[in-house]
Amino acid sequence: MNIEGRNQVVEAIKNGTTINKIMIDKNFITRKDDVISLARKNNLKIEFLPKKVLDAKSVTAHHQGYIAETVEFEYSSVAEILQAAKDKTPFVVLLDGIEDPHNFGAIIRTCECAGVDGIIIPKMRACQVNETVVRTSAGAIANMKIARVSNLKDAIDDLKKAGIWIYACEVGGKSIYEENLTGPIALVIGSEGNGMKQSLRSYCDGIVTLPLHGSVNSLNASVSAGIAIYEILRQRKEVK
Amino acid sequence: MNIEGRNQVVEAIKNGTTINKIMIDKNFITRKDDVISLARKNNLKIEFLPKKVLDAKSVTAHHQGYIAETVEFEYSSVAEILQAAKDKTPFVVLLDGIEDPHNFGAIIRTCECAGVDGIIIPKMRACQVNETVVRTSAGAIANMKIARVSNLKDAIDDLKKAGIWIYACEVGGKSIYEENLTGPIALVIGSEGNGMKQSLRSYCDGIVTLPLHGSVNSLNASVSAGIAIYEILRQRKEVK
Repeated sequence: MNIEGRNQVVEAIKNGTTINKIMIDKNFITRKDDVISLARKNNLKIEFLPKKVLDAKSVTAHHQGYIAETVEFEYSSVAEILQAAKDKTPFVVLLDGIEDPHNFGAIIRTCECAGVDGIIIPKMRACQVNETVVRTSAGAIANMKIARVSNLKDAIDDLKKAGIWIYACEVGGKSIYEENLTGPIALVIGSEGNGMKQSLRSYCDGIVTLPLHGSVNSLNASVSAGIAIYEILRQRKEVK
Repeated sequence: MNIEGRNQVVEAIKNGTTINKIMIDKNFITRKDDVISLARKNNLKIEFLPKKVLDAKSVTAHHQGYIAETVEFEYSSVAEILQAAKDKTPFVVLLDGIEDPHNFGAIIRTCECAGVDGIIIPKMRACQVNETVVRTSAGAIANMKIARVSNLKDAIDDLKKAGIWIYACEVGGKSIYEENLTGPIALVIGSEGNGMKQSLRSYCDGIVTLPLHGSVNSLNASVSAGIAIYEILRQRKEVK
């Protein structure tokens, strides 16, 4: 869906509508334009296009040089994820603040390949489903339940009540190869820069760690998620 | 190192110098400019900057509105990688045409974390070490030997002569969890879109496959490389 017109686009940015990109008349490129600065401040992609391209994309014919392309993705609830997992050993993934859409998309793709039941992300300070995520997921997003919650702790409480064990994949824990991960599990992956929040870490049933040999001492977030997810499958003998 | 001046920049693009980005006077943005089209054709990053920014970056003071920023990375040879691995069980990674710099950088990071002895890439039709690769590798590139070869088959011959077994990580092989991967090994990772070349596939000693459960049926290249590399470490008991 497109949102057209200067005030409408500003409103959409301010109220947190998920926006793929904002298309702006390229004659405005050198203007001091507060839509442009607002969009930049919100890390939104801007495309400067000839007015006639905007005219062709416009439905209302009143775009005023501003069209925002929005994302429509239907999130699931935690209850729906649990419902989908009820006849099997549940396997849920929680992302505590993944910010890079390429990482988020790659993790969705891995979860789909691994048969994970659903992904839970926080509403704030984390990458939401956007155009880059959809593209990077290589179609996997269409088959993956993603729940967006205000508070990951509340979601963890719901999972614990359903008999699921919560393991964080983080530095400083027990080697993932020495932990038994064959039961109902939710795996928590921390953010790229800072790992997971300390308050959440203490809320988990266990911490599992991927051993590191080099001096860099951290893997890419989507790579470490992939290694941990596949190690869980291996232990469950769901991979052969 | 910067290359300055219109003809110099064109020459650098044409002779395959590894270029991070090309900075061009922003007054040229609307020109029909064959440097711009040549740069775009070669997928090079272009930054349009005010002339005074270029003036400040210029050493020669004759940039004519064009400055190319080049990469200086010292590649290793296959012999150097083998030499580094001689007192241990060798573990080499070959990339058969990885094109995305984010994937290449993430794979370098994983290899460094896993203690891989070196990475071998082809000179043609593959991402080379550039600014994005260096950044995505998160510093790992400084500790990783990367050899660039004209022909991966010749490199494989050298590895085979050194007693190393060549395994491709590809669809349609034996499950990686059922193959014994504890000996001296070179793991070949195919390209994002097409996997590895058929001619190279038949040149390998074995094909190992990551089991997939979903309907997308392929993992991100850097994620699948990570899972395979860590499974090899697990089998070797180098992770605990």
